[in-house]
Amino acid sequence: MVVCSVTVVPLGTGSASLSQYVADALKVLKESGLKYQLTPMATVIEGELEEVLNLAAKMHNSVFSDDVVRVSTTIKIDERRDKVLTMNGKLHAVQSKLG
Amino acid sequence: MVVCSVTVVPLGTGSASLSQYVADALKVLKESGLKYQLTPMATVIEGELEEVLNLAAKMHNSVFSDDVVRVSTTIKIDERRDKVLTMNGKLHAVQSKLG
Amino acid sequence: MVVCSVTVVPLGTGSASLSQYVADALKVLKESGLKYQLTPMATVIEGELEEVLNLAAKMHNSVFSDDVVRVSTTIKIDERRDKVLTMNGKLHAVQSKLG
Amino acid sequence: MVVCSVTVVPLGTGSASLSQYVADALKVLKESGLKYQLTPMATVIEGELEEVLNLAAKMHNSVFSDDVVRVSTTIKIDERRDKVLTMNGKLHAVQSKLG
Repeated sequence: MVVCSVTVVPLGTGSASLSQYVADALKVLKESGLKYQLTPMATVIEGELEEVLNLAAKMHNSVFSDDVVRVSTTIKIDERRDKVLTMNGKLHAVQSKLG
Repeated sequence: MVVCSVTVVPLGTGSASLSQYVADALKVLKESGLKYQLTPMATVIEGELEEVLNLAAKMHNSVFSDDVVRVSTTIKIDERRDKVLTMNGKLHAVQSKLG
Repeated sequence: MVVCSVTVVPLGTGSASLSQYVADALKVLKESGLKYQLTPMATVIEGELEEVLNLAAKMHNSVFSDDVVRVSTTIKIDERRDKVLTMNGKLHAVQSKLG
Repeated sequence: MVVCSVTVVPLGTGSASLSQYVADALKVLKESGLKYQLTPMATVIEGELEEVLNLAAKMHNSVFSDDVVRVSTTIKIDERRDKVLTMNGKLHAVQSKLG
């Protein structure tokens, strides 16, 4: 199990508003059934490494269209093998230390 | 105003548990008074470009200690000048398109 | 064809020197036969999206050991479908504009 | 001294060709006198933390224009305090381990 953040950005669109493209990529994510959390700068996903990378590739591909010919996608993977890493577990670990 | 994500990672610590270091960096962030949101892979912050970068530098510096001699910090800035960009505004724009 | 950067970072290693781990991941990359360029902050790779992601997963996995139980990997993909994107092509496009 | 990578990406430009914008940001970098290396996915810079962040802010600002109202900038900082970290030192450390 890995915790992973994915950011999909279409380049050269005629407008600076990109939320429709992000929504399209999120529809692909929703269909996967993987647990995720939308944040203001990235989407965080929980799953096996291979399935998360396959999904990120699908999200990346979903943004291309006749009008969108270039896409920049950033994937950040955090994997820990001595204990189970989850999105909530990571948040709680920090929050408990903040007191 | 920019929306910015910051990730501060100490390298070469003796343990794979890093939440205490993240909590230390968050204390610096809390003192700044800037609006922020903790997520499982990064901390998202809202503010003027200069104050956000100054804060990121302080968070980066806060992690060094006798035991921590190397720190890797990633800062991602999203700035839009044709409208006010906020963390909540970005989230709502995507969510409204998801229906 | 995509141009992609990969950074593989072991966490909690006990030493701030990480070049041996980067070298291990690069051995996996070399075996792939894909074209690449080592830079001070990331390794840049050229290939099809699927093969580059498979390779990044292998590089990520190669760093785990009895002593390394947590690995953070960042993958950044740049894909353009209206023309062939290459590492050299990207560099030359910028350099020609710098004059 | 830190080694830092900076990527400046204009969004909503209407064309998928971005090299002119990268070249504009590099002109700002050249004027700074800081040591740098252009790579296919980022520009790597060597300097003090504060001067590198100030420069990244200038590069970010340089890309805005009447036509470019949104810019996404990623800054990645690597700082080590037990020894001097340089771009060349990082490369050589990995290359020497590759044999």
